[in-house]
Order: sequence, then structure tokens, then C-alpha cells
Amino acid sequence: MSGGQVHFQRIALIGIGLIGSSLAHVIRRDGLAGHIAVGDINSGHCAKALELGIADSAGEDVAEAAKDADLVIICAPIGAYASIAETIAPVLKPGAILSDVGSVKQAVLRDLSPHVPEGVHLIPAHPVAGTEHSGPESGFPELFDGRWCVLTPPEDADEAAVEKVAALWRSARSMIEMMDPEHHDQVMAVTSHLPHLIAYTIVGTATDLEKSLRNEVIKFSASGFRDFTRIAASDPVMWRDVFLNNRDAVLEILQRFNEDLTALQRAIRWGEAETLHELFSRTREIRRGVIDAKQA
Amino acid sequence: MSGGQVHFQRIALIGIGLIGSSLAHVIRRDGLAGHIAVGDINSGHCAKALELGIADSAGEDVAEAAKDADLVIICAPIGAYASIAETIAPVLKPGAILSDVGSVKQAVLRDLSPHVPEGVHLIPAHPVAGTEHSGPESGFPELFDGRWCVLTPPEDADEAAVEKVAALWRSARSMIEMMDPEHHDQVMAVTSHLPHLIAYTIVGTATDLEKSLRNEVIKFSASGFRDFTRIAASDPVMWRDVFLNNRDAVLEILQRFNEDLTALQRAIRWGEAETLHELFSRTREIRRGVIDAKQA
Repeated sequence: MSGGQVHFQRIALIGIGLIGSSLAHVIRRDGLAGHIAVGDINSGHCAKALELGIADSAGEDVAEAAKDADLVIICAPIGAYASIAETIAPVLKPGAILSDVGSVKQAVLRDLSPHVPEGVHLIPAHPVAGTEHSGPESGFPELFDGRWCVLTPPEDADEAAVEKVAALWRSARSMIEMMDPEHHDQVMAVTSHLPHLIAYTIVGTATDLEKSLRNEVIKFSASGFRDFTRIAASDPVMWRDVFLNNRDAVLEILQRFNEDLTALQRAIRWGEAETLHELFSRTREIRRGVIDAKQA
Repeated sequence: MSGGQVHFQRIALIGIGLIGSSLAHVIRRDGLAGHIAVGDINSGHCAKALELGIADSAGEDVAEAAKDADLVIICAPIGAYASIAETIAPVLKPGAILSDVGSVKQAVLRDLSPHVPEGVHLIPAHPVAGTEHSGPESGFPELFDGRWCVLTPPEDADEAAVEKVAALWRSARSMIEMMDPEHHDQVMAVTSHLPHLIAYTIVGTATDLEKSLRNEVIKFSASGFRDFTRIAASDPVMWRDVFLNNRDAVLEILQRFNEDLTALQRAIRWGEAETLHELFSRTREIRRGVIDAKQA
């Protein structure tokens, strides 16, 4: 299974932001492709990718990049998937693999499937990794080290194609997990989307404070607020698209969160010491779980 | 102002958890007291403090510890302040300084002032520092390095007494800020109390998930959730007392947060891409402020 390294003649990366560029670094480092073609509508990103030496060719024409590739990976915001798929579909060669790195997986099937030509293998993937920095200059090959990469292949997916994508991510030193797209979206709604939503909200609330108070919030941010500002500095377009494309799962977990917050608010208002103590003690256990799972 | 080191004949620390023990390490390291007396109702904590060499005497009788001290610092949960003050008041010697390390400052005045004898100087303080670990074994002298310590002396406070407390915290390498107690509580409600409340809630929401989903939340926690689990592992008694004793300021900021979250929820439900993008772009600026203020 783990075996030797996988090799592609030509890998096309559609989008060369943080994730795309980090993956390009891995492909370059490990010599996983004869040619790395980058397609990005941002010409500055293309120039940067060439300058960094992580692309053999780069241009704004995404179909040009995808042409003749045996592996095409979409590394763009999810809202752009449908139009990218429509654009590159005519040039995808038979036997090619089409993959992606999106944080939502049901929407990927919805937007890509209708365009995937017969004989092209759609193998969606989600490397669960990132930083609050964006753009090709932010990428680094260690981004995926020891992190999970979730694959959500269709039930009838070609096993060899799945294995090739898995091998690529193992090269990036990720741990591979297979998941149903619906379940993936539900898990990520809790572990990733809700935390980002909450962080964006709390930082937004602070932004709206009177200027004098806001400056002090920044000054004393190390007391808890700071951690939220890091999360809330993540890429705005990427996150806009995540929320728009995982709406049901996000709204469902947000509803639960809201109920719990209202209960806590009530406990504070009425001075219910026992309720507060019980919750604050219970939440310590999950931290132990996180530490035991070596994710701390 | 910064001048030489301050020195006390006898410092009494009432409570020897994370903050008390860290401060004891500083006092020991810098030789700031002839005698460090620890009073803690937890006999295990007392034994630990003696074993660690950060107490010259330690016992469950807090009045015994405070007796003859020229500086008494309450390092206990805020809910215990009134009873501690009542207990130690009769033994406080004239000219002694009574201080504390609590995260809420209006409640400190409310609970301590009625018991402070004539001739004793009440100089409340709040070192804005901490970790998710509790107890005397978690303390370390560098905890306060480069962090703020907010003093909230009464308007008619003795200047020499204020300077002595400030000098102690400068020895701990903290930066000193003077503040009005009401304003302190408002700032901390935003930067510290609300973030903790939100973190406790979100981790609580996850705890209530079906077991199989909960295990996956832990597995994939590095995608955002992890940061919240660390905050939500903070001391339950300390935080219960913070919320009960800064109720008005917490409920006020929580109400604003709720309104903002509801607006965001609505934007997701109705697919308002522009609203989401605008907020997610705006929050990046505060991060830059935090980085510029060297608090990142």
C-alpha cells in the first residue's frame, strides 16, 4: 500500500494560493511530476509561482494548464469550481484524474460531477491543514506533515486512481482517511467551520467597539482574544465559499451552539454557580482527548 | 520610577494555584521577601509549595499566613475573597498592603473594602497571564514575562504602596497599566471573558454530540476546534467566579456578540455572499493590530 513514490507526467494545479503552492513545493521536492502546470486567474500569482520555481509553466488560462495533464487538482475557492470544471472539461484527457483540496465535499460533487467527461476519474480530497496566511508566497512543503487528508471518492471510483491520489498525499506526509462526503461535511462543520464562524463573529464584535476600547482590546488581546484573531485572519473568499456551500451542516451545528450559549447566558444572569461549574469541568475532558490523540 | 528592587519582610500568598505559585517563584528567584508565607485551604497545595521550595511556611490557616505580613496577596478564586478578607482582617498589621490577582476588579473592591482595617492599603492588581493548567505544580516564574499587569488602586491610594506593588510586578517582568476598575472589567469582558465563554460553549456543544461524531471531532481538531479546547480547559472554579462577578459587562458584550452572530447566521441562510466577504475581510485588520502591538 504505502510502497514507492507515485509519479505523474504532468500535474496541473488550478489555483496557486496557500494550499496549491504548498502542494507544488511537495511535488517539486519529491520529484512527483515531470511538469508542474499552474493555472490561476491572478497573473501575479502565476508570476510568483514561476519565480519560486514551483511551476514549470503558469498562466491565466486554466484550460491551457489542464491540457494533457494526468492529474488536475483544483486548489481554488469552492465558488469557482463549477466554472473551472466547465472550462477545463473539454481538454481533460481520458484516464486523467481530477481532484481538489476543498474544505466542503458534497458541493464539490454537485459542481464538478456534471462536467467530468467519461473516462476521467473524479477523486475529491481535503487536506485538513492551513494557516492564516494566503497566496503563493505563503506556501511551504511541511504544511501537510502529520495532518489528515480526507478522500471522498465516489463508491464506484477506480481503485488505482484513488491510490494515486492517496500516494501523493502520503508523499506530503499526510495521514489518509476515507469518508463519505456527507459525513465529511458534518464533521468539518463542527471542528472547523463553526470555530471559524465564531472567531469571525467575536472579532467583528470587537471591531465595532468604540475606538478607545478597541485599542485596549488589542493591547490586552493575549488574555484569550488573540487566538480568535488568528483564526479570523483566514482567507475571506475561501471562507465565504465554505459557509455558502456547507450551509445546512453549519446552520444545524450553529443552532445547537446557540441553544447552549443561551443556556449559559441564562445561568450567568441568574447566578447559577453549579451550572457554570459543571459545564466548565466537563469541557476539560475533551481537551484530554485532543492531547491523547496527539492533536494538541 | 523603575529603580532598584523592592523588598518585603514577609509576603503572604493566600492561595497557591497557578498564579500564586508562579508569583512565589518570582519572589524566590529575585529574593523579594525575607519570608514567603502560604495560606491555602487545600493542604495538598500547601505541601506541594513547601516541597517546591517556594514557601517558607504553609498551612490551611490563612490568618496565620497573613499575620505580620507587610504584603498580603490574595491568589484565590474571586468567590472566596469576602470570606478570606473577613478571616484575615483582624491580623493585618498597620501599614500592610493587601493586594490580589483577580481577573475582575469591581467585585474585588465590593468584597474586600468593607473588611480592610484602617491603615491597611488596598491595592488590587490583575496580572493578565495564565495557562490552561492549574495548581502549584503548574507555576513557573516566566509566566508574567512581557505581559501586562493592571493595577486598579482607589483614587486616594497611598502612592508608596502603589509603587511597591508595581515594583513587585516589574520584577516579574510585567508591564504596568493603571486603570479604573469599571473600565478594567469592561475591557476584560471583551478580551478575555467573552472568548472563554464562547470556547466553553463550543466545546460543550461538541461534548454533547453522538459519541462517534465526537471522536472524529477530536481526531480532526487541528482544523480550528483545537484552539478552543485549550481555552476551555482553564480552571472551572476560577472561571465560574469570573462570570458570576463580572455579570453585567459579560452580558452586555455577549448580547452584542449574539446580535452579530444572528446577522451572520441569516447571511448564511440567505446566501448573502457580500455580507460574509465584507465581515471576513474586516476582521483581518484587527489581526494586524494585534501583530503590530506585539501581542501575537
